Amino acid sequence: MRNTFGALLTLTTFGESHGEAIGGIVDGYPAGIEIDLNFIQNELNRRRPGQSSLTTSRQETDSIEFLSGIFEGRSTGSPIGFVIRNSDQHRDDYDNICNLFRPSHADFTYFQKFGLRDHRGGGRSSARITVARCVGGALAKLALKQLGITVEAYVSQVGDIALEHDYRHYDLSKTETNSVRCPDPETAERMAALILHTKATGNTVGGIVTCIIRGCPVGLGEPEFGKLHAQLGAAMLGINAAKGFEYGNGFDAVTHFGDEENDVFTGKNGHIHTVTNHSGGIQGGISNGEDIYFRVAFKPVATLMMQQDTVKTDGSPTRFKAQGRHDPCVVPRAVPIVEAMAAMVVLDNYLRNKATRL
Amino acid sequence: MRNTFGALLTLTTFGESHGEAIGGIVDGYPAGIEIDLNFIQNELNRRRPGQSSLTTSRQETDSIEFLSGIFEGRSTGSPIGFVIRNSDQHRDDYDNICNLFRPSHADFTYFQKFGLRDHRGGGRSSARITVARCVGGALAKLALKQLGITVEAYVSQVGDIALEHDYRHYDLSKTETNSVRCPDPETAERMAALILHTKATGNTVGGIVTCIIRGCPVGLGEPEFGKLHAQLGAAMLGINAAKGFEYGNGFDAVTHFGDEENDVFTGKNGHIHTVTNHSGGIQGGISNGEDIYFRVAFKPVATLMMQQDTVKTDGSPTRFKAQGRHDPCVVPRAVPIVEAMAAMVVLDNYLRNKATRL
Amino acid sequence: MRNTFGALLTLTTFGESHGEAIGGIVDGYPAGIEIDLNFIQNELNRRRPGQSSLTTSRQETDSIEFLSGIFEGRSTGSPIGFVIRNSDQHRDDYDNICNLFRPSHADFTYFQKFGLRDHRGGGRSSARITVARCVGGALAKLALKQLGITVEAYVSQVGDIALEHDYRHYDLSKTETNSVRCPDPETAERMAALILHTKATGNTVGGIVTCIIRGCPVGLGEPEFGKLHAQLGAAMLGINAAKGFEYGNGFDAVTHFGDEENDVFTGKNGHIHTVTNHSGGIQGGISNGEDIYFRVAFKPVATLMMQQDTVKTDGSPTRFKAQGRHDPCVVPRAVPIVEAMAAMVVLDNYLRNKATRL
Amino acid sequence: MRNTFGALLTLTTFGESHGEAIGGIVDGYPAGIEIDLNFIQNELNRRRPGQSSLTTSRQETDSIEFLSGIFEGRSTGSPIGFVIRNSDQHRDDYDNICNLFRPSHADFTYFQKFGLRDHRGGGRSSARITVARCVGGALAKLALKQLGITVEAYVSQVGDIALEHDYRHYDLSKTETNSVRCPDPETAERMAALILHTKATGNTVGGIVTCIIRGCPVGLGEPEFGKLHAQLGAAMLGINAAKGFEYGNGFDAVTHFGDEENDVFTGKNGHIHTVTNHSGGIQGGISNGEDIYFRVAFKPVATLMMQQDTVKTDGSPTRFKAQGRHDPCVVPRAVPIVEAMAAMVVLDNYLRNKATRL
Repeated sequence: MRNTFGALLTLTTFGESHGEAIGGIVDGYPAGIEIDLNFIQNELNRRRPGQSSLTTSRQETDSIEFLSGIFEGRSTGSPIGFVIRNSDQHRDDYDNICNLFRPSHADFTYFQKFGLRDHRGGGRSSARITVARCVGGALAKLALKQLGITVEAYVSQVGDIALEHDYRHYDLSKTETNSVRCPDPETAERMAALILHTKATGNTVGGIVTCIIRGCPVGLGEPEFGKLHAQLGAAMLGINAAKGFEYGNGFDAVTHFGDEENDVFTGKNGHIHTVTNHSGGIQGGISNGEDIYFRVAFKPVATLMMQQDTVKTDGSPTRFKAQGRHDPCVVPRAVPIVEAMAAMVVLDNYLRNKATRL
Repeated sequence: MRNTFGALLTLTTFGESHGEAIGGIVDGYPAGIEIDLNFIQNELNRRRPGQSSLTTSRQETDSIEFLSGIFEGRSTGSPIGFVIRNSDQHRDDYDNICNLFRPSHADFTYFQKFGLRDHRGGGRSSARITVARCVGGALAKLALKQLGITVEAYVSQVGDIALEHDYRHYDLSKTETNSVRCPDPETAERMAALILHTKATGNTVGGIVTCIIRGCPVGLGEPEFGKLHAQLGAAMLGINAAKGFEYGNGFDAVTHFGDEENDVFTGKNGHIHTVTNHSGGIQGGISNGEDIYFRVAFKPVATLMMQQDTVKTDGSPTRFKAQGRHDPCVVPRAVPIVEAMAAMVVLDNYLRNKATRL
Repeated sequence: MRNTFGALLTLTTFGESHGEAIGGIVDGYPAGIEIDLNFIQNELNRRRPGQSSLTTSRQETDSIEFLSGIFEGRSTGSPIGFVIRNSDQHRDDYDNICNLFRPSHADFTYFQKFGLRDHRGGGRSSARITVARCVGGALAKLALKQLGITVEAYVSQVGDIALEHDYRHYDLSKTETNSVRCPDPETAERMAALILHTKATGNTVGGIVTCIIRGCPVGLGEPEFGKLHAQLGAAMLGINAAKGFEYGNGFDAVTHFGDEENDVFTGKNGHIHTVTNHSGGIQGGISNGEDIYFRVAFKPVATLMMQQDTVKTDGSPTRFKAQGRHDPCVVPRAVPIVEAMAAMVVLDNYLRNKATRL
Repeated sequence: MRNTFGALLTLTTFGESHGEAIGGIVDGYPAGIEIDLNFIQNELNRRRPGQSSLTTSRQETDSIEFLSGIFEGRSTGSPIGFVIRNSDQHRDDYDNICNLFRPSHADFTYFQKFGLRDHRGGGRSSARITVARCVGGALAKLALKQLGITVEAYVSQVGDIALEHDYRHYDLSKTETNSVRCPDPETAERMAALILHTKATGNTVGGIVTCIIRGCPVGLGEPEFGKLHAQLGAAMLGINAAKGFEYGNGFDAVTHFGDEENDVFTGKNGHIHTVTNHSGGIQGGISNGEDIYFRVAFKPVATLMMQQDTVKTDGSPTRFKAQGRHDPCVVPRAVPIVEAMAAMVVLDNYLRNKATRL
């Protein structure tokens, strides 16, 4: 099940960067949910490049067509099939790469694994294919909305420019007001300047996306190998260019002592809460009702508008400089993908949790 | 499949800290592998506490009994069942916790999820149960040995004491020469001093485990949702107290530019390699033949020998101080568990990869 | 994973009878296989109704469009997405059934399970959606051809008219020469007459499909819960209107004694064979190299051109007579579906079997 | 997942006929169920041979030990591990078979698949290992009891002696009053005579088990590949010596016309029922609230107390006569196994069905 994500709620995807279409099947989606097509198209638009001077100028219209599973505006419980046509197939742009392996791309590993490869724009390994994840995520969000669960992500770091505070300090409704998707306008401007500078030099830069899940009931996640944070981690690390994942205090917890890190319980109006939330809303792998938050590190993407040494497919040396579009920082566009994957994980676990008791 | 790990090679486990036994079933293990029982027992001993002044004094003998799947010294392809009896069941030590929720333990979330809990020593959420993982890992290592693949982990940080260099700088054969499992003896001593100091105050401290996989062929891992690093991340985040995972340059990659981060290919004796290895041996989610390396962050464990505020199961306030054993730093003991999980991931993907072509 | 079939080679499908399209994703398909599009379209045509006076006159063109996973005529190892548009959507024909439950259809059970239903032509429960299975089967056959494995099915019984002998007696190349798909022309004519008579009365009739798999290597199938015949049985019972499955001597074995039923081994040119093949090519759940054969029983389909008692969705009594097309016997059209499912099971197990040893 | 059964409720088993122990892990079992150990042991006893003159005299005590997942008499939601020691290991009885392949056993196919085999008593392929299934089934029955769902099986045919009527004609509480497990005492006596006669000649005889599930709510089963009867079929065909499966009218439906086979709906006290039940309680793959019934055909087992031709492992001819125990008819002992598998399928689907809606 290489291309299937999830346990009870599953997303199976297909498609290559420059093939006919990207698409997928959402299976196990609860019946009876109202499907707001505008909301879904809007979620896809958030991922789409070419929306600001900061990203690649590729014009992906990403117009979605649903083929099944929805009847008279509601989900029927049958699998939801969908396709998004690839309208902007500049195959010529990629003819220069069919005989070489681009540095730090998947060209070499795919070729070795499968014995052949679709070299057009990275084929299956292209970030283009994440559009299918956003469809799954948008559907998941529609169901989560009914449960009062929200998933919000934002850019918290670009290169060495980082937000100073944690998510509680910012008004996340401002995230979408700038093209960097940073909720602090002042920091967003500095990040944007760095990205533009990086673009000017033909280079790329990485960053960090922070995500918060609010309203999650106690009990989601499975104890042993299906810990909620392990599922979230796998989901995030599956996003192109992701290099690291941490939840709650994450790597910082290493340098603290237990009495600083423990979250003390308190009873409030008959409900049990924690006074602090270093745990990041997950204890023993299971949601505890507090905010779930985590961070995902993205490296600078590998496509540089610079000459680089590399090898041809026969191993002989050559030099390579990418042509066409330049995406100096994918981190802002990773924001909706992070949200999409997180939303699917939460809904899947919500459904699984229903089977915990008779 | 809450308690099953893996796709073709699977480990399904059972057991609670103070139940009758811990055990499991390894399924899909290749037939015909010589089973070196001494090696396996030795791997379990590495995880066992009570081996030095640094860890809990709990005497777990962890004597393994194989019940099936091995005939005349070789694996038969049938499932390998095994049990490890819990010989040291001091149930009384835990009677004081049955009516309260210990801070930052899984007591509260398990109770809410399942409607009841086995409070004895954390039940299913105890680190005790990781012994079953070490069995699966030891079996995986026996198979990987035939393929020339090695998995080695070590402690690279305890609290704020961190190794200065990366794994290439150290002689990893020294890792097991000290109880901290740090390959640099001088740093190991400083780490040990910190752990002993932490123990003296009844506190706990976290740390980082680094792991290196050598000899992995090109092609392991799956492109989309089964990226090799995503599988490794999920495996590591499933270990008790893990808070973060990064591979290759990880979070550090965020602050570098693409031209610093890209790994340039070179041909050497007909083989294609990368000059640098910031990718951590994985490109596009698939192993590229270079060393795979990653880091796992562990928080200080939640069991403190200190008074802490908390609540009873009815939400009313109380205070709690753990009794009995004290494990001030689990990070050294996490080393064999990290190796075990990594070994299973690699063997599973090795087997899966055989199905890539006819 | 309600709508996914298979373990390593998987087919996930979507679509309803009168929705936009039927489609699916084949994942885990081996890389490097030449994709003969004419062969695939031809397999779909075999399933298509409206080809003779014996079946429904619905004109389904079933033109397939592949959207991914194929590059320069070969499979790439990436998921193969495909769609088949529903060109013949006579929605009006079904408006009379939206407020009642047709006898022995899935109307009632779907409505109860999901709380709503797509009533148009049976929605997801329509036999129309088996077209997606034929795509998966056609792809599987292309790979099996390289391995010298063939899958052939034929109609061995319609109503009470049954072939007298087993498959070894007939020339199966004659199966497709008549519209009943019976390899014995004389019996085929009698079957056709029965079907036409049934059609004339507005009734339907059942039948049996026999399938033979030749060239299967020894070793396919898994010992315990994944026995090859159990996988085949599940695959066949998943076909619309299937009521029974038997392999080898099947139900007849019940009335024989062990010494009649056992297949004695013999050595022939260094190869071990069985003298008889009552086992049907599978022993202990694993293929033994002999011909695999099995039979699938299909009931008469539920759509009658007759008045029948039934209830409205509120439980009140009504009468119902189907309009539009009439398919008096689906068994001939089940032949390619049986082959498709069997081909996928065999290829899946071939791939799985590669992981049995290191 | 060769040795795992089920989707949300899973049973993973291990063990060989003459190894140390048989055992397994039940995962996904609902929390809070009272575990009646006497009931479970009794279910195992039902499967145990040596209980009458009709079966093998092997003395299997089959004493079960639960190792986890149960606390203070209730299931905790953690995996339930269990072992049953093999107390009666007459390994010497099997030394004569290590160098040959017994006719119609799994000796040959296992050896070819895995490259080696545990020849002792059939190893993993022995019917002995079905004891683990009875544990899973007994646990499932305990949960189903709370839901008012019952699963009852009985022997409806031995050789050519068959019950004349369907299940509604008999008082199934009489099934366990005779060692054949046939609810009609007169027929049971004739069946017993046939079995004793078969035993006297060293031969074996097959039979049919019929099973009825009552009280199943509407909505269990999944539409496409997870049809309830397909799941039941796979479960039954996985039982040793099973050769066929049919539900509802089964193979008999083939010879009837649609107007004879359709089940007309009727409203009764606000509930919708079918007047007849040829469908066997399942329509479109989903339970419709009527009784579910099906039949499983078992061949005569392959172990004969007679000389038979066969080959040595090198293919050279030899002759073989089994020694030790003789089990002339396994069908009565298959009754509790059929019930066990059916109970697990129903509970699994009950749990899965909870995720159908939000």
